[in-house]
Amino acid sequence: MSPRLFGGLVLPASADFHVHLRDGAMLEAVAGTIKSGGVDTVFVMPNLVPPITTVEHALAYKEAIARYTDATLLMSLYLHPSITPDTIRQAKKAGLFGVKSYPAGVTTNSASGVVDYEQFYPLFKAMEEEDLVLNLHGEAPPAQDITVLNAEEAFLPTLLDLHRRFPKLRIVLEHCTTAAAIEAVKKCGPNVVGTITAHHLFLIIDDWAGDPINFCKPVAKLPTDRVALLQAATSGNPKFFLGTDSAPHPLSAKKGGLGIHEAGKCAAGVFTQPYATQLVLEAFEDAVTKGVVEKSRLSQVVLEGFLGGFGRKFYQIDHDGEKIRILAKDEKVISMLSVGGEAGANSTTRDVVIPFRRDSPIYSLEWIQTK
Amino acid sequence: MSPRLFGGLVLPASADFHVHLRDGAMLEAVAGTIKSGGVDTVFVMPNLVPPITTVEHALAYKEAIARYTDATLLMSLYLHPSITPDTIRQAKKAGLFGVKSYPAGVTTNSASGVVDYEQFYPLFKAMEEEDLVLNLHGEAPPAQDITVLNAEEAFLPTLLDLHRRFPKLRIVLEHCTTAAAIEAVKKCGPNVVGTITAHHLFLIIDDWAGDPINFCKPVAKLPTDRVALLQAATSGNPKFFLGTDSAPHPLSAKKGGLGIHEAGKCAAGVFTQPYATQLVLEAFEDAVTKGVVEKSRLSQVVLEGFLGGFGRKFYQIDHDGEKIRILAKDEKVISMLSVGGEAGANSTTRDVVIPFRRDSPIYSLEWIQTK
Repeated sequence: MSPRLFGGLVLPASADFHVHLRDGAMLEAVAGTIKSGGVDTVFVMPNLVPPITTVEHALAYKEAIARYTDATLLMSLYLHPSITPDTIRQAKKAGLFGVKSYPAGVTTNSASGVVDYEQFYPLFKAMEEEDLVLNLHGEAPPAQDITVLNAEEAFLPTLLDLHRRFPKLRIVLEHCTTAAAIEAVKKCGPNVVGTITAHHLFLIIDDWAGDPINFCKPVAKLPTDRVALLQAATSGNPKFFLGTDSAPHPLSAKKGGLGIHEAGKCAAGVFTQPYATQLVLEAFEDAVTKGVVEKSRLSQVVLEGFLGGFGRKFYQIDHDGEKIRILAKDEKVISMLSVGGEAGANSTTRDVVIPFRRDSPIYSLEWIQTK
Repeated sequence: MSPRLFGGLVLPASADFHVHLRDGAMLEAVAGTIKSGGVDTVFVMPNLVPPITTVEHALAYKEAIARYTDATLLMSLYLHPSITPDTIRQAKKAGLFGVKSYPAGVTTNSASGVVDYEQFYPLFKAMEEEDLVLNLHGEAPPAQDITVLNAEEAFLPTLLDLHRRFPKLRIVLEHCTTAAAIEAVKKCGPNVVGTITAHHLFLIIDDWAGDPINFCKPVAKLPTDRVALLQAATSGNPKFFLGTDSAPHPLSAKKGGLGIHEAGKCAAGVFTQPYATQLVLEAFEDAVTKGVVEKSRLSQVVLEGFLGGFGRKFYQIDHDGEKIRILAKDEKVISMLSVGGEAGANSTTRDVVIPFRRDSPIYSLEWIQTK
């Protein structure tokens, strides 16, 4: 029996600074789970198909999401050659919060795996002036000697270079997975921060080896990396805060090439939205139980900071005062989330999302109505 | 278009010194594919359920396999506390060839991941005296800081220790996947050798990340490791020869926890049996094309050695003179192998095995009748 360290704990509602909400039926299924995870504020990733590269699209997407949730929605653009410095100024005016860079959208020197952002320097200059955040998926693209294992570490010189060139640009190194990434973020000035997901506080390479449900990019790394993430998340250093990278994929996409007539890879992504806060607390509790983190580190200030406060400060947003209470009584992670209808024994597998740690016991929480 | 380097090449039939043939319907489906892969001799792994721990069981299994193939069958026992030095002497007399050790069956110090073979020293002594081969699955079991990535390297001190304690014991480090393993085998005396699979000549970590069909244990490692395997396999060093570790799993087992109501990992294993020889040649050709291996290394002697000669010499068996001819004309890897009946669009997925590199072009070969 676990000690249920956090039973009764009252916290400001969490903020999740990296979520994928998709659109259509998936958005409808997923948006409602933001609040279940104790979260009232989300930074929404712009990687729809097609990606969000205009302010109009971002605002329309925000409106679409708002039909299903009253969570505060921080919207972003997808870094793309079609975006101009003027787009950046419009974005700031329209209340967008960031521009997300994916390595796939960036010029690369495939021999060395170096990511070349030079074409975007004028944008970054405008973002620096407008104080719009740059959100980096920090992995070097596939190349000779670059693997899923060292892709993040290989990206870090690029982070340092961008920080040197644009010292006032606020940068988030999204979903840090390595001790090296944590160190790189620490080394930078205060306007470079890192998000940490809930699932990377649990997983190492062995957990996704042969388990597509736990497979995501960046992949979970070594035990020492996981420890570094847990220690950063419980350090009280405001440079590190929660961004779950919760990424719902239909089970059919998770199956990838495992069909009789299909080929291809399993979709990369772990779905944690309905339990964002609870999972972090489970991971912290487990780390205490196993001696990885000292119990004394988990002060109210540290928990509130990692789960929302540090991120809100970085993104310069206020919290409206909503609170949640963690309950000692466990619930069980759902087996699946239905998408576009009811799922059950007789339905197809096409329309469900399997959550992280399905069927496992987990903290329950309740919202404290304050308004 | 690939240059089809090996079109017209005539070779002695290959020998595959590490195969899983299973039993029941799977054996029936798989046994016939030995010859398709240009192989006339197989070293058969004893990990049935229950495992083969008696000479009687091994001989009965041999008889069962022989119903479906006329390949030469080298049989083995599964290292287990129930085996006595007397079993070893019986095994030698009965014409068995090896004893296979799996880390799961061995006492471990879980804190350090050290494999402790001490309980088996009397057996190893008897094996040394009888000149029976010890076949090692060389991976440290799961433990603090041991992952799928470093489990093989962590095992190597154990290999060296066993070799030091039993210097005349013939040992095979099965399915080497790392540069470190290759170096360790080289460092030992001539009676320590290593097998190399066909699929590890192709794969790195990125290839099984998110692709359960390519997921096996030991997992494929880094690009530098793959290069080390290719270089060892093409070096002409008789310490290294083919053992495919071909491991057929029904697709349902490969899907692991990807069912609506199922949980658990995808089965680890790659099925290469029907193309054992062809895959090795494809890997060599690709390595030449990419400049990883010099074409001049691929002499008849080197190819014959890796594909059978070196292993036959190590296991002290003669070759009966059967030959194969590699054809420049490609065929296509089958999409699936039916198990226990016909598979097709309307059949369940339960009864097929998906081969490595399904649907890819591959060398064809023909048998040259010499008797």
